[in-house]
Amino acid sequence: MDAGRLQAYLVAEFPQAFGPGRPHEIAGVDGEGVVLRLLADDDHLRPGGTVSGPAMMGLADIAAYAVILAAIGPVPLAVTTNFSINFLRRPAPGPLLAEASLIKLGQRLAVCEIALRGEGEEELCAHAVTTYSIPPRAI
Amino acid sequence: MDAGRLQAYLVAEFPQAFGPGRPHEIAGVDGEGVVLRLLADDDHLRPGGTVSGPAMMGLADIAAYAVILAAIGPVPLAVTTNFSINFLRRPAPGPLLAEASLIKLGQRLAVCEIALRGEGEEELCAHAVTTYSIPPRAI
Amino acid sequence: MDAGRLQAYLVAEFPQAFGPGRPHEIAGVDGEGVVLRLLADDDHLRPGGTVSGPAMMGLADIAAYAVILAAIGPVPLAVTTNFSINFLRRPAPGPLLAEASLIKLGQRLAVCEIALRGEGEEELCAHAVTTYSIPPRAI
Amino acid sequence: MDAGRLQAYLVAEFPQAFGPGRPHEIAGVDGEGVVLRLLADDDHLRPGGTVSGPAMMGLADIAAYAVILAAIGPVPLAVTTNFSINFLRRPAPGPLLAEASLIKLGQRLAVCEIALRGEGEEELCAHAVTTYSIPPRAI
Repeated sequence: MDAGRLQAYLVAEFPQAFGPGRPHEIAGVDGEGVVLRLLADDDHLRPGGTVSGPAMMGLADIAAYAVILAAIGPVPLAVTTNFSINFLRRPAPGPLLAEASLIKLGQRLAVCEIALRGEGEEELCAHAVTTYSIPPRAI
Repeated sequence: MDAGRLQAYLVAEFPQAFGPGRPHEIAGVDGEGVVLRLLADDDHLRPGGTVSGPAMMGLADIAAYAVILAAIGPVPLAVTTNFSINFLRRPAPGPLLAEASLIKLGQRLAVCEIALRGEGEEELCAHAVTTYSIPPRAI
Repeated sequence: MDAGRLQAYLVAEFPQAFGPGRPHEIAGVDGEGVVLRLLADDDHLRPGGTVSGPAMMGLADIAAYAVILAAIGPVPLAVTTNFSINFLRRPAPGPLLAEASLIKLGQRLAVCEIALRGEGEEELCAHAVTTYSIPPRAI
Repeated sequence: MDAGRLQAYLVAEFPQAFGPGRPHEIAGVDGEGVVLRLLADDDHLRPGGTVSGPAMMGLADIAAYAVILAAIGPVPLAVTTNFSINFLRRPAPGPLLAEASLIKLGQRLAVCEIALRGEGEEELCAHAVTTYSIPPRAI
């Protein structure tokens, strides 16, 4: 799935997260992975204006789902089985980007790595690794 | 801090998460740990009516913070450095409970374990372990 | 499998780890889980006489395997898919115990928790959570 | 520290792991990170001739330590606080390489990523992330 199809699919499947007035959007898709943008609103902020930990975890989890969709097409039953994140430093206020790439894409499991940083920043603010269980599919 | 003081502190510090019309509340505090309840609303649900992964991660993270507060009093600068969760099965629709307990409470780091289950259920729906960095404090 | 059968099975399957002159042995099995003992030798020690991190990781991984064996019988093809550990404090010199218990035992995955402490100590020196993939089996 | 100095330091500090007749050696150091090689012997093998999980965990842990040494010089008191690994597929028999790189190098914590693969193979057999606590140091 390319960026347009991926965005359309996510708007339909996750109306709370994607679509008009919603904070998440696909920022890019290429052979390396998917970049997801979070336009944080008050619900995602901590005192001080930085994005909260749970908002970063949600962003990373959705980015991982998006990179699986980009690779194998719509799999609505894919579910996270394990998620691990290290918080590295506070991001600057403003949009947050999550770059997700596949470490492994197997028949039953996909393992993804997600790098989070403030838009325009070089250093990571968080780094996550997650495993999705994917349902059997035609080849 | 006992349950009442803990709830009051969290309402003041996390108005997005605690307080009138908000989905989180302290369900119990004892020597073993803290139980936090999530009254999931539409923002926390997946199709099918079960709580989403990111909502469970947020619940677990806040429960860990609450058990640290209960043990050492208000430490507004405590931050999560590592968070790891295994999703075990879908919870039944309805309120979700997170039982947080301390594995280690050191001078600089606290390590917490969090068990998540649907209210009234016996089996866990998720299990998390998280590390908080805690600021230096008087003894 | 009870303690005697478990020990015999592990001596046969893991001769490097179990058996005469080898450092691992089953210390107990009950409805709660399995306790494995490491009689650390020089290969497992760091300067200062405490057990090395990799030796603790190996002990925890084997303890998780043993608790799966105790619950479902011999499954030689079970393999670790994810392993996560927090090191909490240095253990005292001497034997190390790993208490493994099952968080979930499903058809395809088992999730285990492992608490490590020096024999006779109360506080944990490390805490691990691991996922094993288990092959299909008769019911 | 360059490859020669790093190897010499590790031979002196970890005589069980490095040096004549020992299975670990530095395979390369550059601006990106450190590559460590494991010449697996019988102690590291599972039935079938592939490297065991604990041997891979030990390799990854030492590789992370080596990349910290390469970046900041000898810090004998650095200790692992958290280690998380996903096992992706069985490596081919033969030497195993661990490529370690730094995700974050802070004043108190270093977070490292480690990719493990059989020598000459492209796909990863395991992927780990670990946090080291590093002692205060002069600047």
